[in-house]
Amino acid sequence: MRHYYSYDEFLQDCHTLTQKIDWEFDAIVGIARGGLTISHLFGEYYDIREVYSINTIGYEDTTKLDCTEVFNMPTIRCAKNVLLVDDIVDSGETLELVLSKLSSRYPDTTFKTASLLYKDTASIKPDWYVKHADVWIDFFWSDDLKNLAKAQTATTHP
Amino acid sequence: MRHYYSYDEFLQDCHTLTQKIDWEFDAIVGIARGGLTISHLFGEYYDIREVYSINTIGYEDTTKLDCTEVFNMPTIRCAKNVLLVDDIVDSGETLELVLSKLSSRYPDTTFKTASLLYKDTASIKPDWYVKHADVWIDFFWSDDLKNLAKAQTATTHP
Repeated sequence: MRHYYSYDEFLQDCHTLTQKIDWEFDAIVGIARGGLTISHLFGEYYDIREVYSINTIGYEDTTKLDCTEVFNMPTIRCAKNVLLVDDIVDSGETLELVLSKLSSRYPDTTFKTASLLYKDTASIKPDWYVKHADVWIDFFWSDDLKNLAKAQTATTHP
Repeated sequence: MRHYYSYDEFLQDCHTLTQKIDWEFDAIVGIARGGLTISHLFGEYYDIREVYSINTIGYEDTTKLDCTEVFNMPTIRCAKNVLLVDDIVDSGETLELVLSKLSSRYPDTTFKTASLLYKDTASIKPDWYVKHADVWIDFFWSDDLKNLAKAQTATTHP
Protein backbone atom coordinates (compact mmCIF):
# COMPACT_ATOMS: atom_id res chain seq x y z
CA MET A 1 0.00 0.00 0.00
CA ARG A 2 1.27 3.41 -0.98
CA HIS A 3 -0.32 6.80 -0.62
CA TYR A 4 0.37 9.70 -2.97
CA TYR A 5 0.59 12.85 -0.87
CA SER A 6 -0.28 15.76 -3.18
CA TYR A 7 0.46 19.45 -2.85
CA ASP A 8 -3.23 20.05 -2.05
CA GLU A 9 -3.16 17.52 0.78
CA PHE A 10 0.07 19.07 2.03
CA LEU A 11 -1.47 22.54 2.03
CA GLN A 12 -4.54 21.36 3.93
CA ASP A 13 -2.36 19.52 6.46
CA CYS A 14 -0.10 22.55 6.92
CA HIS A 15 -3.24 24.54 7.70
CA THR A 16 -4.41 21.93 10.20
CA LEU A 17 -0.96 21.98 11.79
CA THR A 18 -1.06 25.77 12.20
CA GLN A 19 -4.45 25.36 13.93
CA LYS A 20 -2.93 22.88 16.37
CA ILE A 21 0.29 24.72 17.24
CA ASP A 22 -0.65 26.76 20.30
CA TRP A 23 2.80 28.16 20.92
CA GLU A 24 4.73 31.21 19.79
CA PHE A 25 8.10 30.67 18.21
CA ASP A 26 10.60 32.97 16.60
CA ALA A 27 12.62 30.62 14.41
CA ILE A 28 12.00 27.48 12.36
CA VAL A 29 14.42 24.65 11.67
CA GLY A 30 13.53 22.22 8.88
CA ILE A 31 15.15 18.80 8.80
CA ALA A 32 16.55 18.35 5.27
CA ARG A 33 15.33 17.22 2.95
CA GLY A 34 11.80 16.28 4.08
CA GLY A 35 11.20 19.36 6.21
CA LEU A 36 12.38 21.96 3.70
CA THR A 37 9.12 22.80 1.93
CA ILE A 38 7.09 22.97 5.14
CA SER A 39 9.75 25.22 6.72
CA HIS A 40 9.44 27.51 3.69
CA LEU A 41 5.63 27.79 3.86
CA PHE A 42 5.67 28.19 7.64
CA GLY A 43 8.33 30.90 7.44
CA GLU A 44 6.08 32.83 5.08
CA TYR A 45 2.89 32.12 7.02
CA TYR A 46 4.27 33.13 10.41
CA ASP A 47 6.36 35.93 8.90
CA ILE A 48 9.54 34.48 10.32
CA ARG A 49 12.75 35.13 8.41
CA GLU A 50 14.87 32.94 10.68
CA VAL A 51 14.26 29.73 8.76
CA TYR A 52 17.13 27.27 8.99
CA SER A 53 17.82 23.75 7.89
CA ILE A 54 19.76 20.94 9.43
CA ASN A 55 21.11 17.83 7.72
CA THR A 56 21.39 14.24 8.75
CA ILE A 57 23.09 11.38 7.06
CA GLY A 58 22.52 7.71 7.69
CA TYR A 59 25.36 5.23 7.56
CA GLU A 60 25.19 1.52 7.11
CA ASP A 61 27.92 -0.02 9.15
CA THR A 62 28.89 -3.65 8.77
CA THR A 63 29.92 -4.07 12.40
CA LYS A 64 27.37 -1.88 14.18
CA LEU A 65 23.74 -1.03 13.67
CA ASP A 66 22.85 1.66 11.14
CA CYS A 67 23.61 5.04 12.57
CA THR A 68 22.64 8.59 11.81
CA GLU A 69 24.86 11.66 12.04
CA VAL A 70 23.74 15.28 12.26
CA PHE A 71 25.66 17.97 10.41
CA ASN A 72 25.23 21.56 9.38
CA MET A 73 23.91 22.63 12.74
CA PRO A 74 22.40 26.08 12.17
CA THR A 75 23.67 29.17 13.93
CA ILE A 76 20.51 30.33 15.63
CA ARG A 77 20.83 34.06 16.07
CA CYS A 78 18.67 35.15 18.94
CA ALA A 79 15.58 32.97 18.86
CA LYS A 80 14.39 31.62 22.22
CA ASN A 81 11.60 29.40 20.93
CA VAL A 82 12.33 27.28 17.90
CA LEU A 83 9.94 25.05 15.97
CA LEU A 84 11.61 22.00 14.48
CA VAL A 85 9.68 20.64 11.49
CA ASP A 86 9.80 17.47 9.43
CA ASP A 87 7.51 15.75 6.96
CA ILE A 88 7.15 12.43 8.76
CA VAL A 89 8.26 10.99 12.07
CA ASP A 90 8.89 7.39 11.10
CA SER A 91 11.29 5.52 13.39
CA GLY A 92 11.76 8.77 15.31
CA GLU A 93 15.53 8.29 15.29
CA THR A 94 16.29 11.36 13.19
CA LEU A 95 14.00 13.70 15.11
CA GLU A 96 15.24 12.47 18.47
CA LEU A 97 18.88 12.89 17.46
CA VAL A 98 18.40 16.35 15.91
CA LEU A 99 16.44 17.53 18.95
CA SER A 100 19.12 16.25 21.30
CA LYS A 101 21.95 17.90 19.32
CA LEU A 102 20.14 21.23 19.06
CA SER A 103 19.19 21.21 22.76
CA SER A 104 22.80 20.52 23.79
CA ARG A 105 24.14 23.27 21.57
CA TYR A 106 21.47 25.79 22.61
CA PRO A 107 20.62 24.94 26.23
CA ASP A 108 18.73 28.22 26.78
CA THR A 109 16.49 27.73 23.76
CA THR A 110 13.21 25.83 23.84
CA PHE A 111 12.67 23.47 20.93
CA LYS A 112 9.30 22.00 20.04
CA THR A 113 8.53 19.65 17.19
CA ALA A 114 5.87 19.43 14.50
CA SER A 115 5.34 17.02 11.61
CA LEU A 116 2.69 16.31 9.03
CA LEU A 117 2.73 12.58 9.63
CA TYR A 118 3.60 10.37 12.55
CA LYS A 119 3.95 6.63 13.02
CA ASP A 120 2.77 5.20 16.33
CA THR A 121 5.85 3.02 16.48
CA ALA A 122 8.22 6.00 16.51
CA SER A 123 10.56 6.45 19.46
CA ILE A 124 9.46 10.07 19.89
CA LYS A 125 6.10 11.76 19.44
CA PRO A 126 6.17 15.26 17.96
CA ASP A 127 4.46 17.98 19.99
CA TRP A 128 2.05 18.49 17.09
CA TYR A 129 1.24 16.37 14.06
CA VAL A 130 -1.66 16.03 11.67
CA LYS A 131 -2.09 12.42 10.64
CA HIS A 132 -1.03 8.91 11.49
CA ALA A 133 0.96 7.21 8.75
CA ASP A 134 0.35 3.53 8.25
CA VAL A 135 1.39 3.10 4.62
CA TRP A 136 4.32 4.20 2.49
CA ILE A 137 3.96 7.88 1.55
CA ASP A 138 4.93 9.20 -1.89
CA PHE A 139 5.32 12.93 -1.33
CA PHE A 140 4.70 15.35 -4.19
CA TRP A 141 8.18 16.82 -3.77
CA SER A 142 9.64 13.40 -4.57
CA ASP A 143 7.32 12.38 -7.39
CA ASP A 144 5.87 15.36 -9.25
CA LEU A 145 8.97 16.55 -11.08
CA LYS A 146 9.99 13.03 -12.12
CA ASN A 147 6.46 12.25 -13.33
CA LEU A 148 6.27 15.49 -15.31
CA ALA A 149 9.61 14.71 -16.96
CA LYS A 150 8.40 11.21 -17.84
CA ALA A 151 5.11 12.52 -19.23
CA GLN A 152 6.82 15.13 -21.39
CA THR A 153 9.41 12.68 -22.67
CA ALA A 154 6.59 10.33 -23.65
CA THR A 155 4.88 13.16 -25.56
CA THR A 156 8.07 14.25 -27.32
CA HIS A 157 9.29 10.74 -28.16
CA PRO A 158 6.17 8.59 -28.45
CA MET B 1 0.50 44.45 -11.95
CA ARG B 2 0.95 41.29 -9.92
CA HIS B 3 1.28 37.72 -11.02
CA TYR B 4 0.18 34.75 -8.92
CA TYR B 5 2.77 32.01 -9.31
CA SER B 6 1.01 28.73 -8.59
CA TYR B 7 2.42 25.35 -7.61
CA ASP B 8 1.61 24.08 -11.12
CA GLU B 9 3.53 26.90 -12.76
CA PHE B 10 6.42 26.26 -10.35
CA LEU B 11 6.48 22.58 -11.23
CA GLN B 12 6.48 23.29 -14.97
CA ASP B 13 9.24 25.88 -14.53
CA CYS B 14 11.31 23.49 -12.39
CA HIS B 15 11.02 20.98 -15.22
CA THR B 16 12.11 23.59 -17.79
CA LEU B 17 15.04 24.49 -15.56
CA THR B 18 16.17 20.86 -15.35
CA GLN B 19 16.06 20.73 -19.17
CA LYS B 20 18.32 23.79 -19.34
CA ILE B 21 20.91 22.82 -16.74
CA ASP B 22 23.60 21.05 -18.77
CA TRP B 23 25.97 20.52 -15.88
CA GLU B 24 26.54 17.84 -13.28
CA PHE B 25 26.55 18.89 -9.66
CA ASP B 26 26.77 17.00 -6.41
CA ALA B 27 25.27 19.44 -3.91
CA ILE B 28 22.54 22.07 -3.87
CA VAL B 29 22.39 25.25 -1.81
CA GLY B 30 19.05 27.05 -1.56
CA ILE B 31 18.98 30.68 -0.56
CA ALA B 32 16.44 30.94 2.28
CA ARG B 33 13.65 31.49 2.20
CA GLY B 34 12.83 31.79 -1.53
CA GLY B 35 15.09 28.95 -2.67
CA LEU B 36 14.00 26.36 -0.10
CA THR B 37 11.18 24.61 -1.97
CA ILE B 38 13.09 24.43 -5.25
CA SER B 39 16.14 23.04 -3.41
CA HIS B 40 13.87 20.36 -1.93
CA LEU B 41 12.37 19.27 -5.27
CA PHE B 42 15.76 19.40 -7.01
CA GLY B 43 17.37 17.33 -4.26
CA GLU B 44 14.73 14.66 -4.82
CA TYR B 45 14.83 14.91 -8.61
CA TYR B 46 18.60 14.66 -8.91
CA ASP B 47 18.83 12.21 -6.01
CA ILE B 48 21.19 14.50 -4.12
CA ARG B 49 21.11 14.32 -0.34
CA GLU B 50 23.55 17.18 0.13
CA VAL B 51 20.91 19.92 0.12
CA TYR B 52 21.86 22.95 2.16
CA SER B 53 20.45 26.37 2.83
CA ILE B 54 22.05 29.71 3.41
CA ASN B 55 20.49 32.77 4.99
CA THR B 56 20.75 36.44 4.27
CA ILE B 57 19.43 39.39 6.20
CA GLY B 58 18.96 42.91 4.95
CA TYR B 59 19.63 45.90 7.16
CA GLU B 60 18.45 49.41 6.74
CA ASP B 61 21.17 51.68 7.93
CA THR B 62 20.58 55.38 8.54
CA THR B 63 24.09 56.41 7.56
CA LYS B 64 24.85 53.97 4.77
CA LEU B 65 22.88 52.39 1.99
CA ASP B 66 20.84 49.28 2.77
CA CYS B 67 23.12 46.32 3.17
CA THR B 68 22.76 42.59 3.16
CA GLU B 69 24.61 40.13 5.36
CA VAL B 70 25.06 36.43 4.77
CA PHE B 71 24.90 33.98 7.66
CA ASN B 72 24.59 30.28 8.26
CA MET B 73 27.16 29.40 5.64
CA PRO B 74 26.72 25.66 5.05
CA THR B 75 29.49 23.18 5.71
CA ILE B 76 29.81 21.59 2.31
CA ARG B 77 31.15 18.10 2.84
CA CYS B 78 32.92 16.95 -0.28
CA ALA B 79 30.97 18.38 -3.20
CA LYS B 80 33.07 19.85 -6.01
CA ASN B 81 30.20 21.24 -8.10
CA VAL B 82 27.44 23.05 -6.28
CA LEU B 83 24.21 24.43 -7.71
CA LEU B 84 23.01 27.55 -5.93
CA VAL B 85 19.26 28.07 -6.35
CA ASP B 86 16.84 30.89 -5.68
CA ASP B 87 13.29 31.74 -6.70
CA ILE B 88 13.99 35.11 -8.30
CA VAL B 89 17.04 37.17 -9.11
CA ASP B 90 15.70 40.67 -8.58
CA SER B 91 18.36 43.29 -7.85
CA GLY B 92 20.93 40.49 -7.93
CA GLU B 93 22.50 41.78 -4.72
CA THR B 94 21.69 38.69 -2.66
CA LEU B 95 22.83 36.18 -5.25
CA GLU B 96 26.03 38.08 -5.95
CA LEU B 97 26.87 38.32 -2.26
CA VAL B 98 26.07 34.68 -1.48
CA LEU B 99 28.08 33.51 -4.49
CA SER B 100 31.04 35.63 -3.47
CA LYS B 101 30.97 34.40 0.16
CA LEU B 102 30.65 30.74 -0.84
CA SER B 103 33.42 31.04 -3.45
CA SER B 104 35.77 32.64 -0.91
CA ARG B 105 35.04 29.98 1.67
CA TYR B 106 35.31 27.09 -0.81
CA PRO B 107 37.88 28.20 -3.40
CA ASP B 108 38.21 24.69 -4.87
CA THR B 109 34.49 24.28 -5.43
CA THR B 110 32.66 25.41 -8.57
CA PHE B 111 29.39 27.20 -7.93
CA LYS B 112 26.80 27.77 -10.62
CA THR B 113 23.46 29.51 -10.22
CA ALA B 114 19.89 28.79 -11.25
CA SER B 115 16.63 30.63 -10.65
CA LEU B 116 13.05 30.42 -11.79
CA LEU B 117 12.79 34.12 -12.55
CA TYR B 118 15.23 36.82 -13.47
CA LYS B 119 14.99 40.57 -13.90
CA ASP B 120 17.02 42.12 -16.70
CA THR B 121 18.05 44.92 -14.37
CA ALA B 122 19.79 42.55 -11.93
CA SER B 123 23.50 43.02 -11.27
CA ILE B 124 24.15 39.34 -11.96
CA LYS B 125 22.63 36.91 -14.44
CA PRO B 126 22.13 33.34 -13.21
CA ASP B 127 23.72 30.60 -15.31
CA TRP B 128 20.23 29.21 -15.95
CA TYR B 129 16.79 30.70 -15.47
CA VAL B 130 13.33 30.09 -16.86
CA LYS B 131 11.47 33.35 -17.22
CA HIS B 132 11.94 37.08 -17.18
CA ALA B 133 10.07 38.80 -14.36
CA ASP B 134 8.57 42.17 -15.11
CA VAL B 135 5.79 42.33 -12.54
CA TRP B 136 5.50 41.63 -8.84
CA ILE B 137 5.31 37.88 -8.20
CA ASP B 138 3.05 36.36 -5.55
CA PHE B 139 4.51 32.92 -4.97
CA PHE B 140 2.28 30.06 -3.82
CA TRP B 141 4.52 29.44 -0.81
CA SER B 142 3.75 32.98 0.38
CA ASP B 143 0.03 33.09 -0.41
CA ASP B 144 -1.59 29.66 -0.38
CA LEU B 145 -1.52 28.94 3.35
CA LYS B 146 -2.73 32.43 4.26
CA ASN B 147 -5.52 32.26 1.69
CA LEU B 148 -6.62 28.83 2.90
CA ALA B 149 -6.73 30.09 6.49
CA LYS B 150 -8.81 33.11 5.40
CA ALA B 151 -11.19 30.95 3.39
CA GLN B 152 -11.73 28.49 6.23
CA THR B 153 -12.21 31.27 8.79
CA ALA B 154 -14.84 32.80 6.50
CA THR B 155 -16.63 29.44 6.30
CA THR B 156 -16.49 28.82 10.05
CA HIS B 157 -17.46 32.36 11.06
CA PRO B 158 -19.57 33.69 8.20
